This record gives sequence, C-alpha cells and structure tokens, in this order.
Amino acid sequence: MRKQNYPILVALLLSSLVAASAADKAPTFSRADLAAATTLRERAFNDATAYQLVESLTTEVGPRPAGSPADRAAVAWGMREMQRLGFANVRTMDVTVPHWERGDAEFTVLTPWPQSMPTLALGGSVGTGSEGIEAEGVMVKDLDSLNALPAGAVKDRIVFFTNRMERTRDGSGYGRAVTVRASGPSAAAALGALGVVIRSISTSSSRFPHTGTTRYAATAPRIPALAIANPDADALERQFQSGKPVRLRIKSSSRDLPPMPSANVIGEISGTDRASEIVILGAHLDSWDPGVGALDDGAGVAIIMGAARLINGLDAKPRRTIRVVLFANEEFGTSGSQTYLAANAAEADRHVLGFEADFGAGPVWRLASRVNPGQLSAVEQIYRALAPLQLLRGNNAANGGADLDGLAKLGMPMLSPDLDGTNYFDVHHTANDTLLQVDAAALRQSVAAYAVSAWLGAQYPGTWERVAEPKPQRR
Amino acid sequence: MRKQNYPILVALLLSSLVAASAADKAPTFSRADLAAATTLRERAFNDATAYQLVESLTTEVGPRPAGSPADRAAVAWGMREMQRLGFANVRTMDVTVPHWERGDAEFTVLTPWPQSMPTLALGGSVGTGSEGIEAEGVMVKDLDSLNALPAGAVKDRIVFFTNRMERTRDGSGYGRAVTVRASGPSAAAALGALGVVIRSISTSSSRFPHTGTTRYAATAPRIPALAIANPDADALERQFQSGKPVRLRIKSSSRDLPPMPSANVIGEISGTDRASEIVILGAHLDSWDPGVGALDDGAGVAIIMGAARLINGLDAKPRRTIRVVLFANEEFGTSGSQTYLAANAAEADRHVLGFEADFGAGPVWRLASRVNPGQLSAVEQIYRALAPLQLLRGNNAANGGADLDGLAKLGMPMLSPDLDGTNYFDVHHTANDTLLQVDAAALRQSVAAYAVSAWLGAQYPGTWERVAEPKPQRR
Repeated sequence: MRKQNYPILVALLLSSLVAASAADKAPTFSRADLAAATTLRERAFNDATAYQLVESLTTEVGPRPAGSPADRAAVAWGMREMQRLGFANVRTMDVTVPHWERGDAEFTVLTPWPQSMPTLALGGSVGTGSEGIEAEGVMVKDLDSLNALPAGAVKDRIVFFTNRMERTRDGSGYGRAVTVRASGPSAAAALGALGVVIRSISTSSSRFPHTGTTRYAATAPRIPALAIANPDADALERQFQSGKPVRLRIKSSSRDLPPMPSANVIGEISGTDRASEIVILGAHLDSWDPGVGALDDGAGVAIIMGAARLINGLDAKPRRTIRVVLFANEEFGTSGSQTYLAANAAEADRHVLGFEADFGAGPVWRLASRVNPGQLSAVEQIYRALAPLQLLRGNNAANGGADLDGLAKLGMPMLSPDLDGTNYFDVHHTANDTLLQVDAAALRQSVAAYAVSAWLGAQYPGTWERVAEPKPQRR
Repeated sequence: MRKQNYPILVALLLSSLVAASAADKAPTFSRADLAAATTLRERAFNDATAYQLVESLTTEVGPRPAGSPADRAAVAWGMREMQRLGFANVRTMDVTVPHWERGDAEFTVLTPWPQSMPTLALGGSVGTGSEGIEAEGVMVKDLDSLNALPAGAVKDRIVFFTNRMERTRDGSGYGRAVTVRASGPSAAAALGALGVVIRSISTSSSRFPHTGTTRYAATAPRIPALAIANPDADALERQFQSGKPVRLRIKSSSRDLPPMPSANVIGEISGTDRASEIVILGAHLDSWDPGVGALDDGAGVAIIMGAARLINGLDAKPRRTIRVVLFANEEFGTSGSQTYLAANAAEADRHVLGFEADFGAGPVWRLASRVNPGQLSAVEQIYRALAPLQLLRGNNAANGGADLDGLAKLGMPMLSPDLDGTNYFDVHHTANDTLLQVDAAALRQSVAAYAVSAWLGAQYPGTWERVAEPKPQRR
C-alpha cells in the first residue's frame, strides 16, 4: 500500500509555481503521443481485460500467501497471462520466500462474561502451543500508553491494544495506526507480557479480523499476537469497562516453516530509441491467506497488466521499455522487490520512472509524483492529458509503494496515480477481500490513468533525472 | 422474522373503505389515551433503554443458541432486566429445547482450481464424520431444477444450490428463497445425493456464510448440509462454468446432543378494568451461535422491553394486561412458543392482541395488521396516532412472526409495526450480527411505534374480536 504525506494545497502551489517558471523551456510531448494517450484513455473505459485478470487470478489461484502451493500457482498464472497478452521477454526471477503457516487461532474472554471472538494471528506471529495462554488482560490504547504504565503492569498479562484507525482517502490513517501491529507485540513482550491482542487496523464495522505482518524486535521474547475485529474490540472494551478482572485465553497454531522457492514474474513492451531506459510498473502477486487477494493486490496486478496491454495494442511502440513486474511476497517481507533490487544493482539507474499499484481497485483520484523538480512540467503535461478523469494534482512527495521503495530510495522518479483508499481498509487483509469488492468501472478508470501516465512517461522527450532529496520516511 | 404478503395499495384501499363505512359507530380512543400515546412517542425518541438492553445482552451473554450455557445465562439476564425495569409477575416458564452442536465445518473445492471457502453448517445438519465426504459436485439453481434433472444425476454427488435471494423491504425475498435451505438437503438426499452446499440465503456481498435451520424429511436419509457466502458461491459457479469436473469435499463435526432445559421469560404490566385480557408482546431470547444476536433478536427483545418500560412509566395504567414474553429457542424449532401455547391452551382467547418483534432493529416503515374487520377503524386510529413517524399503512393480512404464529392461528388479532428489512438479510444468521449493526436512532423510532401501538391496543374502548378467516400460509 502507498501513502502520501503532505497537504494537497501545498503541492498544488508548489507544482504550479515550478511549472509556471519552467514551462517555457521544458520539452513537450508530441501531438502524436498525446493523441495516443487519448486513444488509451478511451479504450481503457471499454476494456474488460483488467477485470478478467483479477477474476481469473482470484478464481483459479485464490489465496496465495508466500511459500504456499498457490503462491507457485500464481507464478504460473502470471507467466501464462503475460504470454497471452503478448508481452515480450516474459520470464521469472527466482525468489526465496519465508514460509509462515497461519494454523488456527482462538480468542476467548473467560471473565467477566465468557465469549469467544473471531480472531486471526498477525502475520509471522509465533504460536501458543496446544495449551494456549491464559492470563489477565490489560487494556491500553497504543504504544505510548503502554510505555506510560507503571513497571510490572503488563508482566505475565495479555495486552489488548484498543487504538482505532481513522478513515482517510490517502491511507494516512493506516500509516498512523499500523505501528501497533508492527511493534506492539515486541513492545509488550519487552515489558514481560505473555501475548498481545490488537483491535484490527481497520475502518470496518464488520466482524472480519484483519491480519498483516508484525515485526519482532531482536531484543524481546517473541510472543503470540492476534487481531480481533472492530465490533469485538468494542465488546472487549465494554468487558474491561465493567471494572471486573478480564481474564483472557489465546490459542494459535501458527508456525514458521523452511523458506520456499517463489518468483517475480516479468514481462515487457520493448522500447525503441530509448529502449535501455526502463519505465517499471509494479504490483505484487502474493496475497494474505484469509481472502482471495482481489483488492490486495489482484487489482494492482490487473491494473498494471491491463494498462500495459493497452499500450502494447497501440500502433506506436514506446520509446522507453515498459517493464511489468509482478513481485513475489510483498506482504511478508518484500522478498521479491529485495531480490529484484539486488539482481538489478548495476542497472538501477536504467529504471528511470516507476509506477506501483497496491492500494485496491480504484478509482484514481489524484496524480502525485516524486520527480526531480526539472521534470515537474512533464508531470503537469501528463496531468493535463488526464484532465477528463478530473483528478486532483497531488504533491511531489509521493511515497510510492513497498515494492518500488528500494528503487525510489536510489533516486528513481515515481509517478503515482493514487487509488482511492476511503473504503480500502474495510477489507484489507481480511477474508472479505474477494472479487465482489472490485468495482469494474473504478477498475477501468484506474487502468485509464495508469495507461496514459505510463505511456507518456515512456515517451517523454526530455530526461527523467534522478531525484536527489531524501525520500520521506515510510510510516 | 415476519413477512407480508399483499400489495400495499389493496390494503390501503380496503382499510380506507372499511374505515369510512365503520368509523361513525366505531369506539374511539379517549383524549387522555391519545395524549399518553403522544407522551410515549416523544419519550421513546429520548430513551436509551432499548439500546442499553441490546448492548447488555450481546456483551454479557453474547451468542445464545438453544441448549448452550449462554442460553441459560440469557434466561437469567431476562429475569434480572425485567425485574430492574419494574415489570410485574416476572417469571420463567420451563421449556425443553433441542441441543445441536455446530462443531467445525470445512468446504474445499479440489478440482479444477483448489480453494477452501468459509462455510457454516445449516442448523440441525448431521456431521460428515472425521473423514469428510468427497464427491463430484452438481450445480442446480433450486428445488425445481433439482427435480428436473435426469434420474441418477445427483446420485453419490454433492449438490450445490445457486439460487440468489432478492433484496426486499418486507422480507418477501427471504420467504421465496428459504425453501432451498429448509427442504434442499432432503430433496437432494431423496435422489441419492451425499451432501448439499447452498448459496447462503443472503443479500450481502460480504464473505459471511449464513446459517439457519434445515428440516429433514422423514422419508430421506439425513445428509450434511453447508452454506457458503455470496462471493464464494459466485466463485464456485465460475469453477462449474469452466466445464471441467468440479470435485468437492465437505467436512463437519455437527451433532445432536440430548435436549436441555431452557425457559421463556415473562413479565407484565398489570391491567386495570380489563386485566383479564392480554396484549402480548413477543420476541425471542435465543440466537444463532455465529454472531451475538444483536439484530436477531436482541433488537426485538430490546424493542418490546423498551416499549413496555415506557408504558410502565406512564401515570396511567393500561386497561388490559400487557404481557412481555421472551421466547426460548425460536431459531431451532420454536420450542418456547409451542410450550407457551400448550401451557395457555385454556386461555388462548384471553390473548386479545399480539405484537412480535423479530426482524431487526428498525426503523418501522409500515403498520400492518391482522384484525377482525370490525376493528379496522381502531387500527386506523392507531395509525393516525403514529402519523409523525410517517409510516405506510400496510394490509390486514399481516403474517406476524414465528413465535406468535400459534396464537394467531387460533384467531388472535395482530398489530404489526413492520421493521425495515432492506438490509436485514445482509447480516441475518451470520457472525456479523453484532451491536455495530444496530442503529440507535432507528431502534428508538421502533420503540416509539411499538409503545404507541401496544398502549393504544391495551386501551381500545371496544372489543378486539377474534379473527375468523384462515391465516395466510407462512412461506
């Protein structure tokens, strides 16, 4: 998933000023390239390819967590579909992925009012052993309130984090809330806790727990960590508010297994006069296991493949090479992108522009960027070519997504057609991430935005210069 | 749940005609009683009692299927709350309930594209044994299409019913669709099938399977029956549409246990000059087990208790006795209402008017009835007292709900403030039946409608005559 940091107004102001001052001498797109962009946009709204791809991936492969048999089936699916769509140089790049098995999880309130609640282990959580863990619960809001407790307050207890994430269009609410999932278990363990239960990082009122990776610190014991859905977190808060001791039991058979082979799947539209320069389109092929990975990230896979297919169908060929990469294992440690980065260490600078799609099925509501200021006028021209989509112009501090993060940190410019995340965290990392969550019209519009901007990115008559300033910290 | 049969227009016409002809000589409510109705309506919109009741029931008791420890905890809860609210003659009536244990269920597609899907056993389903059942699947729409298959077509197969229920405000879509759940397993078993999987009787796009009782015929083997959610039913249809053989495995540890004690919980507001006549308000205390029974039927319990509490808080006392009954085990065979009917066989005629609340948390959108035509003018006056709620006037063929069905069949008049069921079947009988599905404002409005109509029903200066014509068949 991607997030944006700064207010839109600042960005609009900045980009307008820069564009106004630089526009006169900046290279401009040819009429033919702009006409082709219009063709792409119009075709996208009548093209079912992306929807068919996400339907096919979710139906024929389904849940595809790293290391599972379906993860390898997804690689075969990616190869088959890239070949079917006529991409060039279709190939895999071997990736070794960690293999964590979810197993079953149970969460039970024993006192004051016995009740079991649906739960999911956080990704990477250790199990509890078959006996489970029974202990008194301690309710805290977040990491700050945990650390403000008196010494010994959570020792031999199960810590319940109650913080509620905020619904935002750009996903910033997720960025602020997710630290509890990532760091809460180790923070609690460092204070002697036996286990952790979190209110899901979720905007939903439905009873789906949300999984997602937790990151164990090397300095604390690894303790089991589970998530419960918002309605259950509310009910558990009421149990604590009774003032009576809240006794909890957690049980999980999660476990680590030996690493497994997987692969990035790569296909291209070969460039012409600037073929050595790569415009990279990335999404991730793996998914979490409870759902079928329609929004996360079947839709992203579909958007970039659908956009590339439309470009491939133009009479004109792109100047720069357009490379579509379906990354292995984004969810559980970004193995695929790390492997890609290592394999391309010598050629990182050939990656002149990046696009990532990992934030659901759209629609695109904003065009953000992270380019060298010298190319802001190019972004402005691309933004104008997208005018019929009525997007906002975002700032020039786009964070990109997790899979292109490494290349972006090396100075690769990014264009970010931002997918609307208002409802994304109702479904993200739940069993409910199914095809019925994909709006076919929004998906077509997203393909239009990606196709137009990727095409123009590949045709830009100037140079995509490296981005010098430090990339904003991902939250 | 309740359903209505006939078009509103016919009812409006009928009731207007009858009201016009009978209005002159019909008894009319006193000014004092109408003023008290206004007081009730206004207080209801500022009263949190009902919401607090459903919050308390779902938090402190939670899922309470017949025969479970929580079922008995619910009885204790009902006694405590009725006493707290100041009802008279608070008591239990022993009820023996069947005890079925859900256990775990699994549903897996083995070919062409392996995938597991969340599933729930239908209520009362037999288990599969620990080995499960593996067989080729046969997809049919409904009972008619099952019975139209050639002989032997489903022998030794697992039958998948795909029919999709229709979203309606009055629940009629449920009535039309639910026959597959009730009768599908035995119909398939009679043709030699080994198991049944149904598309949930659901209007939701979310991935919650819906449970609910199936009814085994005595003439066919009892075969296991599971439900899958709409997105999975769609995905399974796509597997069948591939044209390849679809091999399925079902597994369930459901089983019957010995019957258990439970109870109806009864409380009253004693009447005055017509105390021997009973206006009965019914809802059911049990729930299915996957959710916490907030909409089904915590809300109904809350509505009738909240309405009765408001009436109890008036300075005036009702003429007729208002009896609140929280029925045991509606979901799995209406044990509580059958016991109540048997215990009141000699006094059935003293039950002069019935109200049931078993269709979610409102709002009320219509006032329907099933009264002797001689009392349609009374209904019309009650309808006018509800005018600020802007309800539709329903017909005079209200079906009532399952718990008052027996009394209604004996000729008891019914008033039916119909709860809006448009979204009810998104949640009904799923894990997602939680407090977050209850809209507090809609619940208050529903309490207003029930309180006003129950109060006026108890004050009616005429006689609630028995209803002679046969009750419409419940579908």
